[in-house]
Amino acid sequence: MEPGKKIAVSQASKSGLPPGTLIHVGERDPAPTHVRYFVYNQSFAEEISPDSPDTISRDPDTCTWIKVSGLSNLEEIKRIGELLSLHPLTLEDILNTSQRPKYEDFDNYLYLVLKIIRIDNKGNADTRDPSPEFKKDISGTIPDTTAQSEENNSIASSQLSIILTDRVVCSFEETDSDIFDAIIRRLSDKKSRIRRYGPDYLMYALTDFVVDNYFSVFERIGEDIENLEERIIDGDNRDVMEDIYSLKRNLLNIRKQVWPVRETISGLIRNKSNFISEQTGVFLNDVSDHLYQLNDILESYREMSTGIYEIYLSTLSTRMNEVMKVLTIIATIFIPLTFIAGIYGMNFASMPELQWEYGYPAAILAMVVTAAIMVVYFRRKQWI
Amino acid sequence: MEPGKKIAVSQASKSGLPPGTLIHVGERDPAPTHVRYFVYNQSFAEEISPDSPDTISRDPDTCTWIKVSGLSNLEEIKRIGELLSLHPLTLEDILNTSQRPKYEDFDNYLYLVLKIIRIDNKGNADTRDPSPEFKKDISGTIPDTTAQSEENNSIASSQLSIILTDRVVCSFEETDSDIFDAIIRRLSDKKSRIRRYGPDYLMYALTDFVVDNYFSVFERIGEDIENLEERIIDGDNRDVMEDIYSLKRNLLNIRKQVWPVRETISGLIRNKSNFISEQTGVFLNDVSDHLYQLNDILESYREMSTGIYEIYLSTLSTRMNEVMKVLTIIATIFIPLTFIAGIYGMNFASMPELQWEYGYPAAILAMVVTAAIMVVYFRRKQWI
Amino acid sequence: MEPGKKIAVSQASKSGLPPGTLIHVGERDPAPTHVRYFVYNQSFAEEISPDSPDTISRDPDTCTWIKVSGLSNLEEIKRIGELLSLHPLTLEDILNTSQRPKYEDFDNYLYLVLKIIRIDNKGNADTRDPSPEFKKDISGTIPDTTAQSEENNSIASSQLSIILTDRVVCSFEETDSDIFDAIIRRLSDKKSRIRRYGPDYLMYALTDFVVDNYFSVFERIGEDIENLEERIIDGDNRDVMEDIYSLKRNLLNIRKQVWPVRETISGLIRNKSNFISEQTGVFLNDVSDHLYQLNDILESYREMSTGIYEIYLSTLSTRMNEVMKVLTIIATIFIPLTFIAGIYGMNFASMPELQWEYGYPAAILAMVVTAAIMVVYFRRKQWI
Amino acid sequence: MEPGKKIAVSQASKSGLPPGTLIHVGERDPAPTHVRYFVYNQSFAEEISPDSPDTISRDPDTCTWIKVSGLSNLEEIKRIGELLSLHPLTLEDILNTSQRPKYEDFDNYLYLVLKIIRIDNKGNADTRDPSPEFKKDISGTIPDTTAQSEENNSIASSQLSIILTDRVVCSFEETDSDIFDAIIRRLSDKKSRIRRYGPDYLMYALTDFVVDNYFSVFERIGEDIENLEERIIDGDNRDVMEDIYSLKRNLLNIRKQVWPVRETISGLIRNKSNFISEQTGVFLNDVSDHLYQLNDILESYREMSTGIYEIYLSTLSTRMNEVMKVLTIIATIFIPLTFIAGIYGMNFASMPELQWEYGYPAAILAMVVTAAIMVVYFRRKQWI
Amino acid sequence: MEPGKKIAVSQASKSGLPPGTLIHVGERDPAPTHVRYFVYNQSFAEEISPDSPDTISRDPDTCTWIKVSGLSNLEEIKRIGELLSLHPLTLEDILNTSQRPKYEDFDNYLYLVLKIIRIDNKGNADTRDPSPEFKKDISGTIPDTTAQSEENNSIASSQLSIILTDRVVCSFEETDSDIFDAIIRRLSDKKSRIRRYGPDYLMYALTDFVVDNYFSVFERIGEDIENLEERIIDGDNRDVMEDIYSLKRNLLNIRKQVWPVRETISGLIRNKSNFISEQTGVFLNDVSDHLYQLNDILESYREMSTGIYEIYLSTLSTRMNEVMKVLTIIATIFIPLTFIAGIYGMNFASMPELQWEYGYPAAILAMVVTAAIMVVYFRRKQWI
Ligand SMILES: [Mg+2]
Ligand SMILES: [Mg+2]
Ligand SMILES: [Mg+2]
Ligand SMILES: [Mg+2]
Ligand SMILES: [Mg+2]
Ligand SMILES: [Mg+2]
Ligand SMILES: [Mg+2]
Ligand SMILES: [Mg+2]
Ligand SMILES: [Mg+2]
Ligand SMILES: [Mg+2]
Ligand SMILES: [Mg+2]
Ligand SMILES: [Mg+2]
Ligand SMILES: [Mg+2]
Ligand SMILES: [Mg+2]
Ligand SMILES: [Mg+2]
Ligand SMILES: [Mg+2]
Ligand SMILES: [Mg+2]
Ligand SMILES: [Mg+2]
Ligand SMILES: [Mg+2]
Ligand SMILES: [Mg+2]
Ligand SMILES: [Mg+2]
Ligand SMILES: [Mg+2]
Ligand SMILES: [Mg+2]
Ligand SMILES: [Mg+2]
Ligand SMILES: [Mg+2]
Ligand SMILES: [Mg+2]
Ligand SMILES: [Mg+2]
Ligand SMILES: [Mg+2]
Ligand SMILES: [Mg+2]
Ligand SMILES: [Mg+2]
Ligand SMILES: [Mg+2]
Repeated sequence: MEPGKKIAVSQASKSGLPPGTLIHVGERDPAPTHVRYFVYNQSFAEEISPDSPDTISRDPDTCTWIKVSGLSNLEEIKRIGELLSLHPLTLEDILNTSQRPKYEDFDNYLYLVLKIIRIDNKGNADTRDPSPEFKKDISGTIPDTTAQSEENNSIASSQLSIILTDRVVCSFEETDSDIFDAIIRRLSDKKSRIRRYGPDYLMYALTDFVVDNYFSVFERIGEDIENLEERIIDGDNRDVMEDIYSLKRNLLNIRKQVWPVRETISGLIRNKSNFISEQTGVFLNDVSDHLYQLNDILESYREMSTGIYEIYLSTLSTRMNEVMKVLTIIATIFIPLTFIAGIYGMNFASMPELQWEYGYPAAILAMVVTAAIMVVYFRRKQWI
Repeated sequence: MEPGKKIAVSQASKSGLPPGTLIHVGERDPAPTHVRYFVYNQSFAEEISPDSPDTISRDPDTCTWIKVSGLSNLEEIKRIGELLSLHPLTLEDILNTSQRPKYEDFDNYLYLVLKIIRIDNKGNADTRDPSPEFKKDISGTIPDTTAQSEENNSIASSQLSIILTDRVVCSFEETDSDIFDAIIRRLSDKKSRIRRYGPDYLMYALTDFVVDNYFSVFERIGEDIENLEERIIDGDNRDVMEDIYSLKRNLLNIRKQVWPVRETISGLIRNKSNFISEQTGVFLNDVSDHLYQLNDILESYREMSTGIYEIYLSTLSTRMNEVMKVLTIIATIFIPLTFIAGIYGMNFASMPELQWEYGYPAAILAMVVTAAIMVVYFRRKQWI
Repeated sequence: MEPGKKIAVSQASKSGLPPGTLIHVGERDPAPTHVRYFVYNQSFAEEISPDSPDTISRDPDTCTWIKVSGLSNLEEIKRIGELLSLHPLTLEDILNTSQRPKYEDFDNYLYLVLKIIRIDNKGNADTRDPSPEFKKDISGTIPDTTAQSEENNSIASSQLSIILTDRVVCSFEETDSDIFDAIIRRLSDKKSRIRRYGPDYLMYALTDFVVDNYFSVFERIGEDIENLEERIIDGDNRDVMEDIYSLKRNLLNIRKQVWPVRETISGLIRNKSNFISEQTGVFLNDVSDHLYQLNDILESYREMSTGIYEIYLSTLSTRMNEVMKVLTIIATIFIPLTFIAGIYGMNFASMPELQWEYGYPAAILAMVVTAAIMVVYFRRKQWI
Repeated sequence: MEPGKKIAVSQASKSGLPPGTLIHVGERDPAPTHVRYFVYNQSFAEEISPDSPDTISRDPDTCTWIKVSGLSNLEEIKRIGELLSLHPLTLEDILNTSQRPKYEDFDNYLYLVLKIIRIDNKGNADTRDPSPEFKKDISGTIPDTTAQSEENNSIASSQLSIILTDRVVCSFEETDSDIFDAIIRRLSDKKSRIRRYGPDYLMYALTDFVVDNYFSVFERIGEDIENLEERIIDGDNRDVMEDIYSLKRNLLNIRKQVWPVRETISGLIRNKSNFISEQTGVFLNDVSDHLYQLNDILESYREMSTGIYEIYLSTLSTRMNEVMKVLTIIATIFIPLTFIAGIYGMNFASMPELQWEYGYPAAILAMVVTAAIMVVYFRRKQWI
Repeated sequence: MEPGKKIAVSQASKSGLPPGTLIHVGERDPAPTHVRYFVYNQSFAEEISPDSPDTISRDPDTCTWIKVSGLSNLEEIKRIGELLSLHPLTLEDILNTSQRPKYEDFDNYLYLVLKIIRIDNKGNADTRDPSPEFKKDISGTIPDTTAQSEENNSIASSQLSIILTDRVVCSFEETDSDIFDAIIRRLSDKKSRIRRYGPDYLMYALTDFVVDNYFSVFERIGEDIENLEERIIDGDNRDVMEDIYSLKRNLLNIRKQVWPVRETISGLIRNKSNFISEQTGVFLNDVSDHLYQLNDILESYREMSTGIYEIYLSTLSTRMNEVMKVLTIIATIFIPLTFIAGIYGMNFASMPELQWEYGYPAAILAMVVTAAIMVVYFRRKQWI
């Protein structure tokens, strides 16, 4: 297996090339390509060596799952494309990871694109270990994926393409994540539905995993919102505006990835592809429900972020009012007093008050009375 | 009846499990499960013991209402699911109480999910007594449910799932509320429509109760809005912004629960399920009308909450203006006067005015004139 | 005719009662019930005594208009309901005056609900005289309904239910208004279309009256908007914000009543009820046009109210700027001058300037120059 | 020809009259009625005297254009209505010039209502000369219509009703404008499409003129927007807010007139009236394109007006900041200095510094140092 | 080839002319017209001289691409229109470059209008060299089009009209750009799809180029947004508001050009024109996907620009607060101190404190204590 060319170019730089030119287009450098083959039916399940001549079993009662992760090896991906007779535009879409979630129903296969989303803690994104080894007898444990909850999260998304034919599911993950390890594990369980139902159920299972994963991301965003609310109400305004803006960007980002999935899955159910049985349709309906829930939550989050901005703005205004009030009270009380002192500081030759015995105490009294009037006035205004 | 496992997990933590795994998913710990069986037709109505072998009567002219409240006993719920031949995904939805309101039309039953909403007075939510005992001859009184109207309300919702077959209605309430006591009471009345019409009418009656209950919640929200309006217009701005924000959250929350009910009931009417007679359809239409009314009210509330925010913002601005005006007037009048006093406080050897006989009164006069000019100017500006 | 029970309860308090329970639900106490019977065809028109045995003529060429105003007499309304074989839910909707405008097409009748809206001058709402006596030979004059235009209007709406059968129109007005007197008068005119066309035309005529009446209300709102605009541009900001908010509430209120009427009438035209002839359909189309016009106006009003809020906000800001400018100018000019005076007010033993012959004029000159520089600077900044 | 009654009443004041009552309803007094008759086919084109017995030619190969301008002569308009067998509601709509743009397809004619919009320069609206004389041989020149571009424009609209039958086009203009002179001129050109195609093409030509005219109005609005932008960026804020508000009102006004035209023309094309040939449909399509363009422009204008408001608001804020900065700098520098001067202005018997030889210069030095520190601080803050 | 009339008039000035009058209407002067003819099929590809008699080959297996750039030569364009039997309205649309993107399906051809958008660096727009010479054997290199990224960009758009018949593609570019050089180059490649597929594929290729080009423009806008964000967060507010406004205008502008393209291409796919094969439909689907992506990005940009405005507004407010705080602190500390100094600056004959030995230090101490209290107070308020 020769390593492919690692060229990550932006969508724009592909401009001018004929359609079907295979170049990886995405926001990150392509990960190295790993291909695994799983062959199973109700009675057995095996991982086949990639060098095996029969990677797609000829037995019509057998399903094959080709799990590709990392899109750098263009040769290998092209080979798989030929194996499954994919349209050049499909291959191009698999490699161009800026696709909008969608499905396309070709004569010989169904093509589905989704986005796996993940919250990154500032740059530590792709440092996870590769997925654990898959044993020949298909078993294992779910690896520990404790997410560290830190302040300034950003949303990372990677593309998942799924090809579904009569007997084959082929999944292309942009990065080398371990998200589907639980599915591999479930494959080893004879009684699991994946084994009993066809490849369309496997496609559903992958989709369900991706969508279930959205809930984790949403929970994190929900916590961010609650943190922000608390900080503002506690009067801690440092960097709040930056965080509100970053929250809004994250929500925009998520919406871009999640919103079209709803339409995609709804369309898939409505338009009744040949590759999806009615039995599996019921399960896809359940995924669709979840996507409606997610969209409701997303809409709420968006409105809450607007509410947080409004409360922040009014906090700024309130604080300004408070500052102004102190200035006004102090200045307004002392300016007239200072004026009185100024009068008796004048050096006129004849100022009778200055010679009075009780002139000084009288002046002080005048000041106290003036101040008292002010204070009473401010009390009435409810400023102090 | 064995007590079930009490495991309340969040939607996200279920990620990775195969569909149909029965775990209670919700925001609160599951309440203990109570199951009651009511068997009735036009001529009789009885509550059956849960241990009775014939909980679902074999008599084809008889309806059965299985009323389940509390979702902790997974075994029991699973048993009922098998009794009614429910799809595993339906059972899962019943237990996962974060469903969006919806209905699903299966071959052998109709599944409807709604949300019961309630206004909580800060944490005293679930302290109500369990529903009053149901007597064998089905009668009773509506319990006293005087709601205490306190300041900072929050919306609590619990899930109601209804299964409707040819002869059975099975309702699953997330919490153990007494909302349906009036229906139980009505069951004992031979002339009530519930007795005369089929199980679809019972399903309608339950739905109607839930929707009627929304009106109470909306009335409370309406009172909150009027309180806020009054406080702002009276100039009492303490914590107003927090309350506006909390109002908006409540509205968002309610909208999430109530909005989809309209589409759900409309869809149910439009798509003419086999389990719902035309006679009952007319009644569902009435519920649909109420939901349209509720949505109109909700939309008004939302716009009023925006209006309240705007009036609050402008109040802040007005108040600031008022404070600034006082400062400006005082400072602007006294600063020049103090300057005049300052001049005659200078110690120059030759300042002829200081020696004039009427120098001091002249200075005072100059100050009075200056102040008068200022006052006239401010009057013209309409600042005082 | 026995007086009915006067019980006005809110929508929420009806919760728990079986559907079809006849209780008046509305925002005001129900008005006393008056029922009048008009029998007419192309050749004659008479008002029948309510005690007459044949209130609904058996002659198939004759139309009957039952005009009910005031909903307090539940017995009487129930009796009419039985006479026309109304569905219990229809009777309930007639009595529950918080209906959303709608129509319902039953087998034996068409049910239409509209809202009559009126601008109230602060509480003087229901003090109008009862409608003028209807003479047996049906004639009369339009009573004088000069509306007093006062400052703070609020919108009052009352419900109008219309039942249309083959030969009967039955209208239920929530309050006892004289809005339909002109129609009664027109009934006496042999050549009027009401006489020549069927009962569906009468229903159209009632609807047309209600919708024409909306234009008066809209004109009043338009005047309110123009008043507000003028006051803000003239700089009279007293209570402006309260009035903007009250305007918005009125618009919300009107929208809730008028918006759904458009859909209702459009639906009525589109769905071609058996009770409405094609001939009358053309006339309903004209009403529909008016409702589109009204919605356009309403939308404009809503955007104008937003514009008024924006202009008000910016007025507050501008005014603040102006106040600040005066303060800044005065303070900035005099603070340095006062400082200079302060210097020469110091009591140091050796301050040579104090002994100079022209020290005092020189100090005054320094002040004048300083002030002049300031003034020039502010001129350049275009602050003065 | 007898002059009709000149009664312009508002929409609301018509309330209570039976439909079909012919009263002119509009915002202005009705203009005097002028009726002109043009008879033409491919081989000839003549203006017929209104007193001619054959105003509508009986020759089936001939088209007639009845051009009515001014709606005051009710008798004459009624006569034309009878001539063309118009429905009473159509006649009413022609006279009630507050119609929303729409079309109605009757059995014997097509009725189309549009709005001619024009920018008025403050009250000089209707002072144009009447349209130039139409010569019997139909020829002429386009009159000079140089519009004066002045500051505060307002939108005036007048109603155009078009009746289209098999062989007749009848246009009713609310005011007596010369907008269609170019069409009259074109009529005299044998090779023009108007002559070669049927009356539906003439209706298209009138519509096209009205829509082309919208572009002029839009260009004027576009110039207003650019003026506003420039003024705000140049810092000239006088009356800006009033102009923004007036711009928004104009846009609202235009939208009310232009928006529904798009739907109207689209509907006309889609619903394929019998009176419109396929050949003319292609031309109407072109008008529809223009209306889409206009709506795009309108939407842009609306968003630009919002943007202008935002930039204006932030300008106010920025300016306030600038004013505050100057005040802060001056006050903050001089207040401590004045305090120092105040200290040495105290009259304590024993203040050793006062007796020092270099006390005065030392105090001055202290002041300079204090001022310098302030200046450095403000520099760092980037305030100066 | 005779040079045509160079008359660029605005849309409005065309008002009054009959449809089909050929005048160039656009925002810029028309560029000189260049026409090139390419004839090709799978076995050969040649550029034909425009003077050749057979510019459109009679061989039914041959495709012809007529590439027109610059619209000034009306004669030439009219000649091509006759050659292809174009409807006069189509010719008019080609010349009127303010079209909204759209397609029209005529009997004998398909007409498609798109907009080529480009970011201009302030006025240096049209200074590029004309497209490189096209050699007879069709080959070449992509010219260097390094765009200079400068601060204040504006969006320029030019119109591209495409006529598609059975065997001919005719493209009309408003300006003389080199955007299609890569396609010309590809034409020389025997194995390229353009050669193998029909003229509909060529039309797709042109469209694809235009849409790919949008991505470059969007990337530039995205960079502008990031620059703005950084500047605001770094506190560099100079001209930020102007740049936000300019960004919004650019987004509005782009939306006007790009938004309708999506509907256009979707409609083209949905309505299955005779001129487009199913094979090419798949490729157009890919373009449609890209347009959905672009619209998502655009919507994000719009919301981000709103977010940037909000963060800017709150920055202004925060800065104001900061300025006010400094003023308040300094003034509030020194005003009372100056008042104390003022008291002891009074000249009363009997002020005992003045004679005390430690009067002066005591006064200083009083001042220090007063100042200290203030500082503590401000600390508590968290102002310093
Ligand atoms: Mg939603
Ligand atoms: Mg939504
Ligand atoms: Mg929303
Ligand atoms: Mg939204
Ligand atoms: Mg939404
Ligand atoms: Mg929504
Ligand atoms: Mg919204
Ligand atoms: Mg609504
Ligand atoms: Mg609504
Ligand atoms: Mg709304
Ligand atoms: Mg909304
Ligand atoms: Mg709504
Ligand atoms: Mg709405
Ligand atoms: Mg509208
Ligand atoms: Mg509207
Ligand atoms: Mg709107
Ligand atoms: Mg609307
Ligand atoms: Mg609208
Ligand atoms: Mg709205
Ligand atoms: Mg648009
Ligand atoms: Mg918009
Ligand atoms: Mg729009
Ligand atoms: Mg809008
Ligand atoms: Mg639009
Ligand atoms: Mg739009
Ligand atoms: Mg989108
Ligand atoms: Mg949006
Ligand atoms: Mg938008
Ligand atoms: Mg959108
Ligand atoms: Mg969108
Ligand atoms: Mg959207």
